[in-house]
Amino acid sequence: MTDASPAVGSGLSTAEIIAVGSELLTPFRIDTNSLFLTARLNDVGIVVRRKSIVGDSPTDLATAIGEALARVDMLVVCGGLGPTDDDLTRETVAEVLGLPLREDPRILEWLSGRFSARGWTMPENNRRQAQVPDGAVVLENPRGTAPGLWIEAAGRIVVLLPGPPRELEPMFAELAAGRLAARSSTKRLYRRVLRVAGRGESHVEELTQPVYEPWQRARHVIETTILASPGAVELHLSTRVDTASAAQTVLDGATAELAAVLGEHLVSTDGRTLADVVGTLLLQHGYRVAIGESCTGGLVTAALVDSPGSSKYLDQGIVAYSNDAKRTALGVEAAVLAEHGAVSEPVAEAMAAGARRAVGADVGVGVTGIAGPGGGTADKPVGTVCFAVVAPEGRRIVRTVLLPGDRAMIRQMATRTALDLLRRALERPPRHASVRSE
Amino acid sequence: MTDASPAVGSGLSTAEIIAVGSELLTPFRIDTNSLFLTARLNDVGIVVRRKSIVGDSPTDLATAIGEALARVDMLVVCGGLGPTDDDLTRETVAEVLGLPLREDPRILEWLSGRFSARGWTMPENNRRQAQVPDGAVVLENPRGTAPGLWIEAAGRIVVLLPGPPRELEPMFAELAAGRLAARSSTKRLYRRVLRVAGRGESHVEELTQPVYEPWQRARHVIETTILASPGAVELHLSTRVDTASAAQTVLDGATAELAAVLGEHLVSTDGRTLADVVGTLLLQHGYRVAIGESCTGGLVTAALVDSPGSSKYLDQGIVAYSNDAKRTALGVEAAVLAEHGAVSEPVAEAMAAGARRAVGADVGVGVTGIAGPGGGTADKPVGTVCFAVVAPEGRRIVRTVLLPGDRAMIRQMATRTALDLLRRALERPPRHASVRSE
Repeated sequence: MTDASPAVGSGLSTAEIIAVGSELLTPFRIDTNSLFLTARLNDVGIVVRRKSIVGDSPTDLATAIGEALARVDMLVVCGGLGPTDDDLTRETVAEVLGLPLREDPRILEWLSGRFSARGWTMPENNRRQAQVPDGAVVLENPRGTAPGLWIEAAGRIVVLLPGPPRELEPMFAELAAGRLAARSSTKRLYRRVLRVAGRGESHVEELTQPVYEPWQRARHVIETTILASPGAVELHLSTRVDTASAAQTVLDGATAELAAVLGEHLVSTDGRTLADVVGTLLLQHGYRVAIGESCTGGLVTAALVDSPGSSKYLDQGIVAYSNDAKRTALGVEAAVLAEHGAVSEPVAEAMAAGARRAVGADVGVGVTGIAGPGGGTADKPVGTVCFAVVAPEGRRIVRTVLLPGDRAMIRQMATRTALDLLRRALERPPRHASVRSE
Repeated sequence: MTDASPAVGSGLSTAEIIAVGSELLTPFRIDTNSLFLTARLNDVGIVVRRKSIVGDSPTDLATAIGEALARVDMLVVCGGLGPTDDDLTRETVAEVLGLPLREDPRILEWLSGRFSARGWTMPENNRRQAQVPDGAVVLENPRGTAPGLWIEAAGRIVVLLPGPPRELEPMFAELAAGRLAARSSTKRLYRRVLRVAGRGESHVEELTQPVYEPWQRARHVIETTILASPGAVELHLSTRVDTASAAQTVLDGATAELAAVLGEHLVSTDGRTLADVVGTLLLQHGYRVAIGESCTGGLVTAALVDSPGSSKYLDQGIVAYSNDAKRTALGVEAAVLAEHGAVSEPVAEAMAAGARRAVGADVGVGVTGIAGPGGGTADKPVGTVCFAVVAPEGRRIVRTVLLPGDRAMIRQMATRTALDLLRRALERPPRHASVRSE
């Protein structure tokens, strides 16, 4: 992900998104379509002013549509285009805009064909999906029965999209690249993402705030957003300029300034994930890696396998959950376990070395810790996790950290920490590579 | 999770939720607080009519608040209570409601104390957090600097909550159990969740729709919602009655009817996850389990380790990603690999047997497949995954499935399928336990 994407200007500049569906007003479902839609709208320079979620009530939907059209240039309504009685978006939008509905014979033919291709007769209620407000442009839906609609009325644009993401996303991506881009000004929004590991959100803010704060007053303003999830922080930079090459210059300069203060905490500036970066480093060194993990229970190996092509550097992972397994599968000596305890740096190191030996790999990673809720002691509270990375040329990191949160969060942060220490061991020049318990 | 929870009646019955923050209008952040809030509101019988997300603009926020107050009894506003210039919720709400702001000396004292306890002086801008609209009740926030506020004005209730979930959740849980429950009627909302595996959403609907459809017209109406994620389906039942024992009777009857049509696809009716159910079965049988997995890369083992206490039945998992690893770590014979290919039922079965043997466990599970994006053939397209479960008393399942979606989805569905086949093998009476390629 380098710089891409455009921002409207002449006509469209603001939008609202309405997600329709009573299930989105329960504790169990959330609207995630708006994230995709916002990204594509921002690409063509359209800013989202508000997002609303309403149930399958024509009154509530009509109110929401009317309010939104009074505020913005463009309205995107998702969901409620299905064939059943509670799918009311088409009818409600037509009524609010004062447009009569007519049956589109091409949609009807296409729908019937879809059913007859499977040897079925089209149910009568699917006929509703062929209803189109007068003057609307039909957006084809190869992945479902609900066509989308593009309506221009009263100086506004209203787009109706089916709710399922796999139907909505390709439909809107095509629309954004086509009709929407055609309405956009020359200024577009360009983005860059910096991934950071090994430092929390507030620490990253402390380091970077003096760098990015002046950008607010620069000739080309750069917006900076810091986003955190357990064990990872992202810095999102965006700027609104005329050309991709201008964006490149502005964002390259900004990235270099941030890289200088982030140092080895910076994972990537090109959108690659931590696992991708580790994979690239392993390939560059020509190393194969083996994982011996306990409290993470397979998540470290699974994170590496996430990257397609990981078979080039990963043969095998060993989840050694019990002490027995640590001895038999990873060759950790009983005396080391007895003297230091299963959660200790010597055991982590023996697990890394044992995994490397068992698999015949170049690099070994060991992770052992207390994910809770039980098992903590005064000395080693829940969240204590020991890591070891052993690699050729004397590259070696052994470290103990105390991670916050519940069992799931500790395991997730431990997984990220293991990958990050592996990255650091492989990035450092060999002479700096031996670090014990920093 | 059995039946819990209450529903308002006399006074409060409808609510809207507004999430405030410009970051929630980017492609990178989503409002998830509303799920928690909706669950607690539903518990006390309050239905959520609309959710809105607005940026840090006092004009936009004032509009949204005004619109909401015209529609519902109660408004919950989350976020924008921080100390910085873009935190404008307090001031905007006070202005819309026409309430003057006053500085609360107790909040100020508590805030200063919080800082001085760490040896710091309170920054001047935190003083804003002591501003309280006239007549508001202050909701303490032990986990952050932003107190919540409960305001009764113009016949409506407005609750302001801090944005971070770890601050918002305990604050609102206390409020729901206290002030909100006190305003509620005797009728409460009771819920039950049925988890289903091995059948897709539409198939589950087909099976259960004839059962639940008449409940809409019953004396005690039961609402049914079907929720699907890759490899899992949930049926949520809810009913609004006067007492917990009435709810128990109604929901027990409904659950029994659904169980009859779902058969062995029903995983649990008490909120336990698939991994929890598998763990319980392993404990009941007194079995220990070993996993030999390839395309899932550690996710099957990690899913079992998710359940606290899994050390009682899980020693070790082996991720054998390469053919070499399948031979050396799991003892799969080279001839079997050569004859059938790595993704085949004989190899899955050899992996299960090999994992069981290597670890000295009672039960072995083997998973091998093609997660993509590369590696598919005409015979074995991307998504082909072979599973084997071998267990005592002749319990044995060997199966091949073709899973849809991308690499991440295939791996997730394969993980759920492996756990579900393990569940079925352990649930079946031994005489039915040998099933090959159903």
